[in-house]
Amino acid sequence: MVVIMSPRSTGQHVNHVVQLLGDMGANAWVINGRESKVVEALEVNGEVDVARLEAAPMVDRVLTSPDPLLASGRQPEDRTKEVPLGSVASIGSKKLGVIAGPCAVESKNQILDVAAAVKEAGAVALRGGAFKPRTSPYTFQGHGEAGLELLALAREETGLAIVTEVMRCEHVELVARYADVLQVGSRNMSHFHLLSEVGRQNKPVLLKRGWSATLDEFLLAAEYVMVEGNHKVILCERGIRTHEKYVRNTLALAVVPEIKRLSTLPIIVDPSHGTGQRHLVTPMSKAAIACGADGLIVEVHPTPRKAWSDGSQSLAPDQFQQLMAELEPIAMACGRGV
Amino acid sequence: MVVIMSPRSTGQHVNHVVQLLGDMGANAWVINGRESKVVEALEVNGEVDVARLEAAPMVDRVLTSPDPLLASGRQPEDRTKEVPLGSVASIGSKKLGVIAGPCAVESKNQILDVAAAVKEAGAVALRGGAFKPRTSPYTFQGHGEAGLELLALAREETGLAIVTEVMRCEHVELVARYADVLQVGSRNMSHFHLLSEVGRQNKPVLLKRGWSATLDEFLLAAEYVMVEGNHKVILCERGIRTHEKYVRNTLALAVVPEIKRLSTLPIIVDPSHGTGQRHLVTPMSKAAIACGADGLIVEVHPTPRKAWSDGSQSLAPDQFQQLMAELEPIAMACGRGV
Amino acid sequence: MVVIMSPRSTGQHVNHVVQLLGDMGANAWVINGRESKVVEALEVNGEVDVARLEAAPMVDRVLTSPDPLLASGRQPEDRTKEVPLGSVASIGSKKLGVIAGPCAVESKNQILDVAAAVKEAGAVALRGGAFKPRTSPYTFQGHGEAGLELLALAREETGLAIVTEVMRCEHVELVARYADVLQVGSRNMSHFHLLSEVGRQNKPVLLKRGWSATLDEFLLAAEYVMVEGNHKVILCERGIRTHEKYVRNTLALAVVPEIKRLSTLPIIVDPSHGTGQRHLVTPMSKAAIACGADGLIVEVHPTPRKAWSDGSQSLAPDQFQQLMAELEPIAMACGRGV
Amino acid sequence: MVVIMSPRSTGQHVNHVVQLLGDMGANAWVINGRESKVVEALEVNGEVDVARLEAAPMVDRVLTSPDPLLASGRQPEDRTKEVPLGSVASIGSKKLGVIAGPCAVESKNQILDVAAAVKEAGAVALRGGAFKPRTSPYTFQGHGEAGLELLALAREETGLAIVTEVMRCEHVELVARYADVLQVGSRNMSHFHLLSEVGRQNKPVLLKRGWSATLDEFLLAAEYVMVEGNHKVILCERGIRTHEKYVRNTLALAVVPEIKRLSTLPIIVDPSHGTGQRHLVTPMSKAAIACGADGLIVEVHPTPRKAWSDGSQSLAPDQFQQLMAELEPIAMACGRGV
Repeated sequence: MVVIMSPRSTGQHVNHVVQLLGDMGANAWVINGRESKVVEALEVNGEVDVARLEAAPMVDRVLTSPDPLLASGRQPEDRTKEVPLGSVASIGSKKLGVIAGPCAVESKNQILDVAAAVKEAGAVALRGGAFKPRTSPYTFQGHGEAGLELLALAREETGLAIVTEVMRCEHVELVARYADVLQVGSRNMSHFHLLSEVGRQNKPVLLKRGWSATLDEFLLAAEYVMVEGNHKVILCERGIRTHEKYVRNTLALAVVPEIKRLSTLPIIVDPSHGTGQRHLVTPMSKAAIACGADGLIVEVHPTPRKAWSDGSQSLAPDQFQQLMAELEPIAMACGRGV
Repeated sequence: MVVIMSPRSTGQHVNHVVQLLGDMGANAWVINGRESKVVEALEVNGEVDVARLEAAPMVDRVLTSPDPLLASGRQPEDRTKEVPLGSVASIGSKKLGVIAGPCAVESKNQILDVAAAVKEAGAVALRGGAFKPRTSPYTFQGHGEAGLELLALAREETGLAIVTEVMRCEHVELVARYADVLQVGSRNMSHFHLLSEVGRQNKPVLLKRGWSATLDEFLLAAEYVMVEGNHKVILCERGIRTHEKYVRNTLALAVVPEIKRLSTLPIIVDPSHGTGQRHLVTPMSKAAIACGADGLIVEVHPTPRKAWSDGSQSLAPDQFQQLMAELEPIAMACGRGV
Repeated sequence: MVVIMSPRSTGQHVNHVVQLLGDMGANAWVINGRESKVVEALEVNGEVDVARLEAAPMVDRVLTSPDPLLASGRQPEDRTKEVPLGSVASIGSKKLGVIAGPCAVESKNQILDVAAAVKEAGAVALRGGAFKPRTSPYTFQGHGEAGLELLALAREETGLAIVTEVMRCEHVELVARYADVLQVGSRNMSHFHLLSEVGRQNKPVLLKRGWSATLDEFLLAAEYVMVEGNHKVILCERGIRTHEKYVRNTLALAVVPEIKRLSTLPIIVDPSHGTGQRHLVTPMSKAAIACGADGLIVEVHPTPRKAWSDGSQSLAPDQFQQLMAELEPIAMACGRGV
Repeated sequence: MVVIMSPRSTGQHVNHVVQLLGDMGANAWVINGRESKVVEALEVNGEVDVARLEAAPMVDRVLTSPDPLLASGRQPEDRTKEVPLGSVASIGSKKLGVIAGPCAVESKNQILDVAAAVKEAGAVALRGGAFKPRTSPYTFQGHGEAGLELLALAREETGLAIVTEVMRCEHVELVARYADVLQVGSRNMSHFHLLSEVGRQNKPVLLKRGWSATLDEFLLAAEYVMVEGNHKVILCERGIRTHEKYVRNTLALAVVPEIKRLSTLPIIVDPSHGTGQRHLVTPMSKAAIACGADGLIVEVHPTPRKAWSDGSQSLAPDQFQQLMAELEPIAMACGRGV
């Protein structure tokens, strides 16, 4: 059972509810999100007087068997939320949103070249890592703030929104100063404090599914962001770990229509990590759109074979242009545009 | 190293090659397919005189590092093979082939009703199990030959080709008398003698991927059929086992474009077993076509909630009609028809 | 609901029960095992008169919510069944049973050498494949009956029981003539007709778990054997497919104590296929015994680096001797002997 | 190629090496651990003059093809490191170290009761969560510092070392004030900044394997800790995600002997999370020790059915006592003590 407090409630109102629950023989767990305040009744012994709880000051609702997705759960009448990408585009509308760019920001030339190319081909946002999560501590981990500056420069030159990963709580404000969308990567999907921290920003969050996360875990990770007040969450499927060997990950596209059924959040697909193979990126992008994805995030590099990381899954600019061309009729067949 | 013998070679020619290899210090393993005769050199010590082997009577070719897919491997210039479904349709052409019908043949009314409905909606073949593989020996395992007779009756009434599973070598001829396409199910993908047996028939074979088979294992299972002379093999992806819980299986669609790259065999998708959830069948069907599948095999039942098996993944006839309607624009966007 | 018929019941008695069920508005599915005859009620509409069924001639029991493991299910008071290996040893007693030998029978010297060595080290049975399931049709598939003859010769010389794989129904009688134990391999765990066929023999069956089978599927596969009258089934865990890369399979040892809880059948472990790495065989053998396994099946080859198959997971004879030496104190610590 | 700098090297020395590499046409990536300073050469074009690098000031070694485990890699002559647990015990010695306690610290009575019980049974350390990672934000997440205080009290009363999880960088110093061992949980195995932060503490770190991490990823995560100077790392296997349903996770015990081969770090096993089932904890604990684990971490709760979390996998105190009793003969059979 959970008690949803009014956004205007204070700690005093919450404490009052906790005490009421205690009087009824139940322990309470308080979720003190910046926006949402929720009291969960634990270890209820005997009956709880719901009417008395509902009558308490600043109590919004009492849910006896709540949808676990308090913030993002979808009712039949709901539509997918539209989340803005910077000031010019959005994800979750009738128009697909394609984010493209290199794995990592390597150099000024690299990022400006690729930004111009993906803009030209129809992307609405530029991806590129300034902070890179790497399996080994002994490998290149990104240019840090210098990389963020280059991304900002690319935005200035092209007008593209900037999507880049943030890996640690201490960097959230720094990255938010430069980026239009804060990406939380697959490894960090269950890094709950990072989720809370980006939940306190006024920037959209791109949340990638953990590579072995269940669907529940994925959707509840989004709740960690939303409970803090930031409802601008874009979900992203990027493949799961299985026994398959010819791909880096197994792209589990059925999550796309399932998320459309359960959640109001938009969902995009990463066919680059989701396959790890350049030649599979275009067909799987088309499949993603056909089953209802709201967009894509695709790795593009000016010279894939020279990429410092993920070269084998990166498209060259002309290949990306070809992808966008092939995408359009599929989008139209689904009643959408690119 | 393998030595490919001429189809006109006899045992004597093969023995001669085995002896030549023996003289060169190598053991030999003979694949005595009805059509293909191949000699593989094992444990080669020292050098093998390729020219001498090539000069032997009835030797076609000597491959020192062969593509493991001797029969189905694809060269850049190759096109996908077109495999007939009965006399009226085919899989592997520009036109998609959709096979539909119930999990099991339950009764005359059930199979005739569903046959008429899927025909009307545009299916080219009827599926339905007369022999059912079941996890427990204590559950319904199909009507056997009586079920085959009902399928033949449905063909008579609708003109649909019949696709039905064969589970044991002893039944292959029986099933082949009634069916237009012999289905080898997921559990039997590595039942090599069954593969050989259907390889000796003059009927197309629908080969479903084992639920944890690697791509190599899948493609090599097709070779077991082809080495016997039957090259009319249709591959089918039907989902793999992973940690995911909201689906019965994880539909691994990236095999579709990968198979298009490696093999000349057509590939279709089973979105019913591939998800186990009725509401996911249509979106995943669209995804399958968008990434290049040559067709679908879909479970349809007149009254899914009364189905003896697989009810929760079966479409009702009107839902199947809706699926076909939604499929058409996707097919056209990919330059194909339904 | 299932109706268990007396072993002395005839088709007439069974038909009578089917008709009774029909009168009560239920369809029936008959399992006509050589020994067990079971009638399952399908699609029960309304109430079934259990007393009337129980009163029918030759009805043993009516189970309204049966343990799915009709033949092998374990009650708290049950002990593990002891299954004989030839005339000299058994699996499932206080004494562990270790089966050892090469992947495939390659030559007379190879099999006699290894038989003598594993006998000397304490094995109670010799394994060795005469019919080999191979992923590719273009590779060595075993010496067939000639291999069986060599195994019989090895038995004559050493007294070891012979364990060898049978892959097709047509070969069951042939293999049973030579072997003491019929092995059904991992690929064939759901080859239901093969299970029935070995269920009609009077020889113990070694049933290996499919590499992605659930525990239910594994235990129900054993029921397919037992329903035909052959209750001498030995289960074998041999590793499952996961994302792990440093091993060929992930040895899932928790099935051992779980099977001890659910089933009366003995369970052994194959650490060779279960890891695919020679250096992991001994530690995982010890782990298997420590968690309650009744024995092991281990690959041993006179010269592993020259083995035609599975060389990297085969022990040399002295390594096997060392394994047996290390096993003894573990067995004793578990109150067992080797 | 990596250049290992002397621990006494300064930024100037490192910069000199970076410049040398630049002169040779290579980019460089610097790992500036508190203790280890390593320069990795990226994008080497042409030849690098190793001798010139080795001659540079404060260069220790130049490795052209380094073992990726720079800090923990094992040579044949190496022994497992012994890591102290508080002042009284250790993990990695001949004597096994068993850590036991509840999932979460719930109350003073709960933690003191269980501490006394596990001490009595032979545990060397007490586990218990004050900060709990939970899938949903709407569930109890631990008592925080109040929980740490209770753990400290339990140490005072029993002398047990305290093992507790730290989830965020900001809490590392707080937790380190109370705990003897800092636990990094499965979800945080790739939370690289947390790894670095605990690497800067002078407290042992218990690093649990991510539930779908490869072995490489696991061992390299330990390097993130060690590169900062803290070499007191204890590894912990706790089960991976697979298709298996009767367990919460599949305990992949083969990592134990594999880690013994590759790494000098001690490895313990968590049979509670590794199975999720109380009745499997004892047999799998015995298996873990039999294959070489240096200890265990086991969930014990005074009244498992009342536990706020993980009750179904928690042992009652008498069950834990029984586990310890059964463990002893296995340990002795492996030449170890409890």
